[in-house]
Amino acid sequence: MKCSIVTIGTEILLGDIINTNSAYLSRKLAEHGIAVFSHHTVGDNPDRIQDTFKTAFKNCDTVITTGGLGPTEDDITREAVARFLGLELASDAKAQTEIAAFFEQRGRSMSPSNLKQAMFPEGSIICHNSRGTAPGAIASSNGKTVIMLPGPPFELELMFQNSVLPYIEKISSQVFRSRVIHFSDIGESEMNDRVKDLLDGKNPTVAPYAKTSGCQLRITAGAKDHDYAMKLIKPLEDEIVNRLPEYIYGYDDDTLESRAAELLKKLSMTISCAESCTGGMLSSTLVNYAGISDVFAGSVISYSNAVKIQELSVEESILEKNGAVSEECARAMVIGCAQKFNTDVAISITGIAGPGGATDDKPVGTVYTGLYINGQVSIRKLNMFGDRQRIRLRTVNSVLFNLVKELEKL
Amino acid sequence: MKCSIVTIGTEILLGDIINTNSAYLSRKLAEHGIAVFSHHTVGDNPDRIQDTFKTAFKNCDTVITTGGLGPTEDDITREAVARFLGLELASDAKAQTEIAAFFEQRGRSMSPSNLKQAMFPEGSIICHNSRGTAPGAIASSNGKTVIMLPGPPFELELMFQNSVLPYIEKISSQVFRSRVIHFSDIGESEMNDRVKDLLDGKNPTVAPYAKTSGCQLRITAGAKDHDYAMKLIKPLEDEIVNRLPEYIYGYDDDTLESRAAELLKKLSMTISCAESCTGGMLSSTLVNYAGISDVFAGSVISYSNAVKIQELSVEESILEKNGAVSEECARAMVIGCAQKFNTDVAISITGIAGPGGATDDKPVGTVYTGLYINGQVSIRKLNMFGDRQRIRLRTVNSVLFNLVKELEKL
Repeated sequence: MKCSIVTIGTEILLGDIINTNSAYLSRKLAEHGIAVFSHHTVGDNPDRIQDTFKTAFKNCDTVITTGGLGPTEDDITREAVARFLGLELASDAKAQTEIAAFFEQRGRSMSPSNLKQAMFPEGSIICHNSRGTAPGAIASSNGKTVIMLPGPPFELELMFQNSVLPYIEKISSQVFRSRVIHFSDIGESEMNDRVKDLLDGKNPTVAPYAKTSGCQLRITAGAKDHDYAMKLIKPLEDEIVNRLPEYIYGYDDDTLESRAAELLKKLSMTISCAESCTGGMLSSTLVNYAGISDVFAGSVISYSNAVKIQELSVEESILEKNGAVSEECARAMVIGCAQKFNTDVAISITGIAGPGGATDDKPVGTVYTGLYINGQVSIRKLNMFGDRQRIRLRTVNSVLFNLVKELEKL
Repeated sequence: MKCSIVTIGTEILLGDIINTNSAYLSRKLAEHGIAVFSHHTVGDNPDRIQDTFKTAFKNCDTVITTGGLGPTEDDITREAVARFLGLELASDAKAQTEIAAFFEQRGRSMSPSNLKQAMFPEGSIICHNSRGTAPGAIASSNGKTVIMLPGPPFELELMFQNSVLPYIEKISSQVFRSRVIHFSDIGESEMNDRVKDLLDGKNPTVAPYAKTSGCQLRITAGAKDHDYAMKLIKPLEDEIVNRLPEYIYGYDDDTLESRAAELLKKLSMTISCAESCTGGMLSSTLVNYAGISDVFAGSVISYSNAVKIQELSVEESILEKNGAVSEECARAMVIGCAQKFNTDVAISITGIAGPGGATDDKPVGTVYTGLYINGQVSIRKLNMFGDRQRIRLRTVNSVLFNLVKELEKL
């Protein structure tokens, strides 16, 4: 299967929407060993869509379209595909039932134009849309296949998972399974260097990705069934874990905050935070995790020195002698925090996020962070780079990663 | 000028990177009255790039390329453009100087392959890159123009502003100016309905955009000079402000937090926060604003009831009788917060972000928020929808918008 992606919609050409669908589909197809030759975006114009199909099929046998499946006059993907493949449009009974059921479930009334959404090239395989009114479809003729998916990513992604992947697995007689390993505290280029020899494999494939919270490696194998695919993945996973154990914080759907929260729950430990430059970002990230209330007591955001003194019992002499951005202040903050909230674990952060506030010996990006675990305090000095938001975000990631690594030792 | 955008880079076809450049360029071009006919993405393959240029130029006279200007063997945009336009590649002295200066400034040594980056189709206009090594260029032949820009958005966007826009303004003998009006507390479709009759203008144009913090209208005018463009914009701006005054929080680069911070500074008022379900997101958003330290004292994140009682002096009987998510609790929290931090303004938030924690009369999305200003307390009940993160984000936006509107009255 050789593939191109055609996005249909004038709103993309106006820049109103970023085309995340093409990236999503490309990544998923790459994981399944399918080469993507080109992306194209074209407006709601019948002739230009035909031209684009011609170009897209030049190197490929399959085109995935996104968008243009709605009920309005601008939605012309179904007609365009039928015309290109030389097929008649026919109302699909299954699609009709799906659309009617969608409206019934939501207690909304269906307009006649919604029935247009059930018209597909004859012989199409209909793809169920559980998140919207527009079914998708797979149409084929003369060795050319067009897979039509809806534009909204929320609808497209589920339909791809539920209908397109099974179709791909069926025609390739293979299932594909992935294992994602999450890293922090290591740059993408260094990670790649350390596993370079593993990146050229064909099955399983190993693909690196960078995320704001770190980077990841995705191992993907195609095989005749789930168990065999996972068996192919296992030795590669072990090899990677063996090479870079100190940078790994989790697998698959894990996040830094979910890992931290789950470890705290497992250890029956509570946590509190004292944040200065991050201004609540660490606490807010922990609260991303539903169920954090089992372990998270609360935090003090001590942006001013007065609050550090009053709420965290930081001695005025420390602020005068060492300054608020200092090892001593981070230590006093984290002890004051653990005492105030009476938690097993506490974290303090004090630093210079910039653009102002730097001194000769404390440039922008200087951060001190304290970690209190059962009465033991350790302080780290971080030197972060980037703008104000990046310094704060990288600080939160580093602090959470360090927390996960320390909790893993308990 | 009729334009298409060609993205060159295999990494985009693998889905490693989301193509934000095409959206950025399309939006900017639309604002300048230039129609974009298509987007294409092609890998680092010489013949396929030629085919893509042929397709892209079908309806256009100008193609903007992004990517493929680096020093490696995969970077073949310069060669591809020269071949397509039938021009020789020549080393450009200005580009050479630029590249050398970039390395010198950073104290890094230049490799011979970097000099490849100075080779452009003969007669090109070189575009300065102040954020990277790869200069861009504008090459023309036989009525066809190719504008070559680097791939990294950080480099591309500045080059577009500094080199491409002046080029466009020169060939069109016009300057383009914009005015952005920011709205909150109103949906994009309602905003559009209220200004529908203004959206069809040709000059100025009015274009709506949705953002996570609300939505915006961008008025853009082309004229012979800056003053005349602003004069064209003014009546439309006044009309929009006149129609929707209650939803406007700022203009151009304003954000909700910058507006709140600037109003507090102007009024010489201090602020503190007591956050429960948002878990620090409100405080962290305020701290996005560099210079917040002038007005922001600190916050308590009172995730547990014990912290609400101990740190914010919420009476236990309120928690027992009314629950933590109640008007009474929001009131007690905001008063306790203002007293603790001794600030002129305080905000409290307590709610159910889900997915758990809902009761029959308090569904997920129920939020109570208190605003204390100089001893006066007002409580609002919000009914938010969406998942955990969206409920929290929308709550923070609503709270900041309400704060701005209340401060504007003082």
